[in-house]
Amino acid sequence: MFLKEIKSPDDLKKIPQNELPQLCEEIRSELISTVSNTGGHLASNLGVVELTVALHSVFNSPDDTLIFDVGHQSYVHKMLTGRYDKFSTLRKADGLSGFMNPNESIHDPFISGHSSTSLSSGFGIAKANSMLGKEDRVICVIGDGALTGGLAYEALNNIGRSNENMIIILNDNKMSISKNVGAMAKYLSDVRTRSSYINTKRSVKIKLNKVPIIGRPLSRMIEKSKQALKNVVLKQNMFEALGFYYLGPVDGHDIFKMIDVLKSAKEIKNKPIVVHAVTTKGKGYDFAESSPESYHGVSSFNCEEGVQSISYGYSEAFGDAICELAEKNDKICAITAAMTDGTGLSKFAEMYPDRFFDVGIAEQHAVTFAAGLASKGMVPVFAVYSSFLQRAFDQIIHDCSIIKQHVVFCVDRAGIVGRDGATHNGLFDAAFLSEIPDVSIFAPSNYSELKEMLNITVNERDGVCAIRYPRSVEPENSVNNFNGAPYFIKNLTSSKIIVTYGNLFNLADKSDCSVCKLNELKIDDALVSELSKFDEIYFFEEGIETGGIGQILASKMLKAGYKGKYHLTAINEFVTHNEIDVLLKKYLLDTDSMNRIVSEE
Amino acid sequence: MFLKEIKSPDDLKKIPQNELPQLCEEIRSELISTVSNTGGHLASNLGVVELTVALHSVFNSPDDTLIFDVGHQSYVHKMLTGRYDKFSTLRKADGLSGFMNPNESIHDPFISGHSSTSLSSGFGIAKANSMLGKEDRVICVIGDGALTGGLAYEALNNIGRSNENMIIILNDNKMSISKNVGAMAKYLSDVRTRSSYINTKRSVKIKLNKVPIIGRPLSRMIEKSKQALKNVVLKQNMFEALGFYYLGPVDGHDIFKMIDVLKSAKEIKNKPIVVHAVTTKGKGYDFAESSPESYHGVSSFNCEEGVQSISYGYSEAFGDAICELAEKNDKICAITAAMTDGTGLSKFAEMYPDRFFDVGIAEQHAVTFAAGLASKGMVPVFAVYSSFLQRAFDQIIHDCSIIKQHVVFCVDRAGIVGRDGATHNGLFDAAFLSEIPDVSIFAPSNYSELKEMLNITVNERDGVCAIRYPRSVEPENSVNNFNGAPYFIKNLTSSKIIVTYGNLFNLADKSDCSVCKLNELKIDDALVSELSKFDEIYFFEEGIETGGIGQILASKMLKAGYKGKYHLTAINEFVTHNEIDVLLKKYLLDTDSMNRIVSEE
Repeated sequence: MFLKEIKSPDDLKKIPQNELPQLCEEIRSELISTVSNTGGHLASNLGVVELTVALHSVFNSPDDTLIFDVGHQSYVHKMLTGRYDKFSTLRKADGLSGFMNPNESIHDPFISGHSSTSLSSGFGIAKANSMLGKEDRVICVIGDGALTGGLAYEALNNIGRSNENMIIILNDNKMSISKNVGAMAKYLSDVRTRSSYINTKRSVKIKLNKVPIIGRPLSRMIEKSKQALKNVVLKQNMFEALGFYYLGPVDGHDIFKMIDVLKSAKEIKNKPIVVHAVTTKGKGYDFAESSPESYHGVSSFNCEEGVQSISYGYSEAFGDAICELAEKNDKICAITAAMTDGTGLSKFAEMYPDRFFDVGIAEQHAVTFAAGLASKGMVPVFAVYSSFLQRAFDQIIHDCSIIKQHVVFCVDRAGIVGRDGATHNGLFDAAFLSEIPDVSIFAPSNYSELKEMLNITVNERDGVCAIRYPRSVEPENSVNNFNGAPYFIKNLTSSKIIVTYGNLFNLADKSDCSVCKLNELKIDDALVSELSKFDEIYFFEEGIETGGIGQILASKMLKAGYKGKYHLTAINEFVTHNEIDVLLKKYLLDTDSMNRIVSEE
Repeated sequence: MFLKEIKSPDDLKKIPQNELPQLCEEIRSELISTVSNTGGHLASNLGVVELTVALHSVFNSPDDTLIFDVGHQSYVHKMLTGRYDKFSTLRKADGLSGFMNPNESIHDPFISGHSSTSLSSGFGIAKANSMLGKEDRVICVIGDGALTGGLAYEALNNIGRSNENMIIILNDNKMSISKNVGAMAKYLSDVRTRSSYINTKRSVKIKLNKVPIIGRPLSRMIEKSKQALKNVVLKQNMFEALGFYYLGPVDGHDIFKMIDVLKSAKEIKNKPIVVHAVTTKGKGYDFAESSPESYHGVSSFNCEEGVQSISYGYSEAFGDAICELAEKNDKICAITAAMTDGTGLSKFAEMYPDRFFDVGIAEQHAVTFAAGLASKGMVPVFAVYSSFLQRAFDQIIHDCSIIKQHVVFCVDRAGIVGRDGATHNGLFDAAFLSEIPDVSIFAPSNYSELKEMLNITVNERDGVCAIRYPRSVEPENSVNNFNGAPYFIKNLTSSKIIVTYGNLFNLADKSDCSVCKLNELKIDDALVSELSKFDEIYFFEEGIETGGIGQILASKMLKAGYKGKYHLTAINEFVTHNEIDVLLKKYLLDTDSMNRIVSEE
């Protein structure tokens, strides 16, 4: 077995080239067996096996910088850079991160958990290399999905006109997380259908030459008539038009061709290069190849049987609820940023294709597009993970809130998400949405409340609304405590009260204390006056402390002259990957900690 | 005079076409005389006179939707849509907004203050039109500068593959606010150097036809040989490659040609169209034409003499300070998002061109690019307006803060900005930056403090740092109260104390009260203990109340058991355009209000 012996990329370089296909097979087996056990991103990593082996064969990490955009496609890279031994700890407590992480290895030069960032960070590194007089290469591997993100384009716009030693590997797997949409995807598909770009240009010439009598002189005429034709023929490719040297398309699963094309790329200096590699998501594992979306991010599963049905959680409850509402209200539209399955919208997409919009990995556009729909009386619902909505902070302010557009945000994965770790936790949404004037924020504690809140935000409220819910399932025997009121108090006639919202209410509800559950994350006078009756208030918040709801309540209590004691337990740092319940315990947000904190003081 | 008679676009349509050049002249005169009096955006509006007249001649607003990207180029549109009478009130209290504003007119279908939003909002409106069975057109006017923003690209990617009745007018004036940079600008310049795109394609054919004997049959052959040549010839243009029907380039100052090309565009249905109009910023006013950047956003000036030198403010003080530091520390880099002049970086750009980066209107990329530079040991300083930094909220979290990159944000136009109004106020930065773990935020009250804080953040601190300063000048006889300590207290041994930061300190300092000035916007135990000595605390904040520093302090005081009274005066809504001092008075943030509030209660 070769894989076991690779302690660093140097060891990989010692393997004879004809043995590399064997190595790739070993890597695939390891991917399937580990990810089926730990959960994680399978399909995307199966797609980049040869590509990653080729990269480490040709370039010298860490001198050359390798960045995998959306680091979830960096598992193979991890195996080849001294982390094979630890690979079984992937996404586990104290184990390997599921994304690139500079704290983990010198071979991870930059963090990459969110999409479309690699070209910008890579360009920063390339510019720094230039200023420091280093000739090392910067190589960014970016999928066609990530290329739908505006950040990537902003970077292309800068890089294309520079003279930096940057190589962009366009990992064209014909889809992002959902099936790819948009003009760029169509364009790439057009490019793919030609044999190879360089060959096409040649073949035009050859065809012209083959036309008897007239061909040859014309071919010469064309070569001379640069003024008229240079742009037409030579600038035909979009990446070339933007200033890149373009190589491809090349079969990304042909390890020998990949090595060849990367060697060619390495020879070109002081010019940015795009290498267009065509790959197949899930390559080599039948289940994943035929249904790559089901194998994007998975929980553990049985290798022989493949992934079974997705468990029913808040996302699916949301999906059912919006379908039901859309039946009665034909103004309702649903928007996703390349996360149809993840946000529970598959059913809606099928039932109401005309009112369903997958905009690509483009959260900013999703929000402003939604505001445009709303300005004409439609009711757009944008379902999005909390940590990705951070990208559209300005658009919520500028395009929605200032002009009070009726847009509904369904904020999935709010709070701690567990194994995806620091880049994916939804710690900030309660705070950043609260800052924005007139945004109504709801926090259900079970599916039934979520459904009711969705109905209210869609059909009754106006202006910007948000509903935030966790990555988890509702507790058994959960009771709906939302009757349209902004808060609900379970008063055990004690002098102490816990205040919290969302999923933490379910944990607080199991405690021995009085509990105030915020259905709506706003602090009105009635609530302040109600809470003033208690001698001690204990706020528990599964989110960032600074600017969070616990602080907002505290400030309102103090302003109102509250003289009791105020305790606030919230999060003050980025949370690394682990099981959700372990993390809740760590941050003193579990039922036991609540009981202890309330009784202690 | 025609202009006076135009009460609506219908009146414009009654003017004989041969008189339109005369109308354009009248509009130009009005622009120059009004903006020289009110201040505002001059060069960009002089560039779109013919284009806007042509639009209203051909299309029917408000049925057809007209959106001007970055609404500061909508002055001509305002004049032609019933607001000529009010034009002299531009940017004044209760007068016309300097941007598009749906609250102002049915002809302003959407807000547009920030750049690159129009394609997304327009696409939302177009989709809504389709769903509502309306065939009205949506026309977005977007500059080549705004096209460097990723949001615009995200939208292009969606629109290009749709069948909507959308017309994008690419207003190619060869620069955004600063001279345009990047691959797209280079590409457009390539396109411009050809006579006209359609003509080029024809001319190839004509030239081929002219080749004796061989030409004509070959021309036919080319038309048949679609497989080989269709992509090469027809897909040559980038917009066509993305699925648009492309018309242009056309002289945007030739009113007749503009009307012609728009009429052609109007005939094409169910396909998105790009009309590429080439214009000149500042057209028709010599001073502005020769120095358009100086006439981007101006204060009032004398028409005969033109704009005189820019007054020295915080931006220029920052510019001087960074040049001085860069001389001693060659790792310092400066980054701007198309705001070299506005952020005071012109001198730096001239002195240190290799360390200066204008990335285009691309705040997200600016931040991640900065983080990339930082990861290699450079010290990037990103100078940016507060309201535009909102766009990079996620990048500050994900690419800077999680991995503690040493990036310095110089946040200009923090607080109330005055006449630019709701879309441009910097009300949110203190709140949203505070949320992010480990971000050090400084708030100078004069140039000397700004300089010292810049030195500390660049040379002494690590991790993410921000310095926020207002759009204004320092007060006369201002004293440096920053000696590296996080706060400064002027104690008049009273029982009441004002707490504030930044520019408001200068106003509080003139009051009769004890004042605590926060140099650094963090609340540590020492500060809490110090303030606990006072019976009453009065926090004044020129920023949003929810999640702001006043609330953070309040929550910490309550948690620490403070039993005194806490008063918080901050902002709870979007602030419309007016003079800064009038607005400070309105929100009770001026010296008189402070004195009154403190003495009243």
